[in-house]
Amino acid sequence: METRPELARLHQQVEFIVEVDRLKEVLRQNVLTVSGRRENDAEHSWHLCLCVLVLAEHVDAPQLDLLRVLKMLILHDLVEIDAGDTFAYDTTGAAMQHEREARAADRIFGLLPEDQSREFRAVWDEFEMRQTPEAHFAAAVDRFQPMLLNARTEGHAWREHGVCASRVMARGAYIREASTSLWEYVQGMLGEAVSRGHLADG
Amino acid sequence: METRPELARLHQQVEFIVEVDRLKEVLRQNVLTVSGRRENDAEHSWHLCLCVLVLAEHVDAPQLDLLRVLKMLILHDLVEIDAGDTFAYDTTGAAMQHEREARAADRIFGLLPEDQSREFRAVWDEFEMRQTPEAHFAAAVDRFQPMLLNARTEGHAWREHGVCASRVMARGAYIREASTSLWEYVQGMLGEAVSRGHLADG
Repeated sequence: METRPELARLHQQVEFIVEVDRLKEVLRQNVLTVSGRRENDAEHSWHLCLCVLVLAEHVDAPQLDLLRVLKMLILHDLVEIDAGDTFAYDTTGAAMQHEREARAADRIFGLLPEDQSREFRAVWDEFEMRQTPEAHFAAAVDRFQPMLLNARTEGHAWREHGVCASRVMARGAYIREASTSLWEYVQGMLGEAVSRGHLADG
Repeated sequence: METRPELARLHQQVEFIVEVDRLKEVLRQNVLTVSGRRENDAEHSWHLCLCVLVLAEHVDAPQLDLLRVLKMLILHDLVEIDAGDTFAYDTTGAAMQHEREARAADRIFGLLPEDQSREFRAVWDEFEMRQTPEAHFAAAVDRFQPMLLNARTEGHAWREHGVCASRVMARGAYIREASTSLWEYVQGMLGEAVSRGHLADG
């Protein structure tokens, strides 16, 4: 029954699907707006996809390939199954981050049949390189969503890690490059967070 | 600064993005393969999107619009924010399910600007109607992923709710319609679950 090549291939693909169940166990620094528990990478990835559907009209670049953007966001955090989440403002962790993540990409995408492994790795590489309008938009929502959750949880992760407004603004550069409107929104949101004492000025 | 109409629109859209953060709090009957904690709807939705990217080649229908499939899966469970998760084998809950979910769709998609509200509702309706090849595939992965998690957690939700093999097979009809290979895989998987005592025969 399992001699057909497409079934052997399918078995390998299903093992990949089981392996990435682990993304649900990788915790981020952000907390959720209702329960206040820490967000995990899988639900974060879903929320980014949702942001793409809602916010795509605000992207300055014309003719975006939304399927490509969604593929990047569905896959972008898989490397954290091995490499762990590196907090956005952790400069020590960031130094080794790329090396750790590239090794993780080798192992995790390597679980797939070879042609599909290459295809998924190319999607991840495109996201990491930030050279296409699709990668820019994907990176922009990956910056925006945690800022939004922080803003709506009294600056939880910002306060916990003593992050100040200028660093958050610098981190938002991808948003500024992708969408004038979204950047305007973010500036207002961060200004409000500072005035409420949820984000340190400076 | 907020007088431009696209900014008012953006503010409304961001409130929607914050509201759907609640999907992360809706618990399902399945448990995760590593920690054994119950899965939530948001991470489930991400896992379905991942399954689409991995398994699309096995769909029998030619020329599938994958962006449409992903849109359906990103949005398909939002109604459960209000309506709650109805367990796949809960016939009492299922009777009122459609009415509860349609009311939830009215409220939740109604938070968006009107044109976008109509667009998102049409995507959800397409998923619910199961009339297009895209909706068939989306429904198939929505059936497959929980079966896979159950199979890999010693039949957790099946055993907890006393579900037997014939009901799981019946529930898999969308998989059979969408993909011959995936259906063959599922039959093998369920047979193995029965032989291991993780799924009741009959």
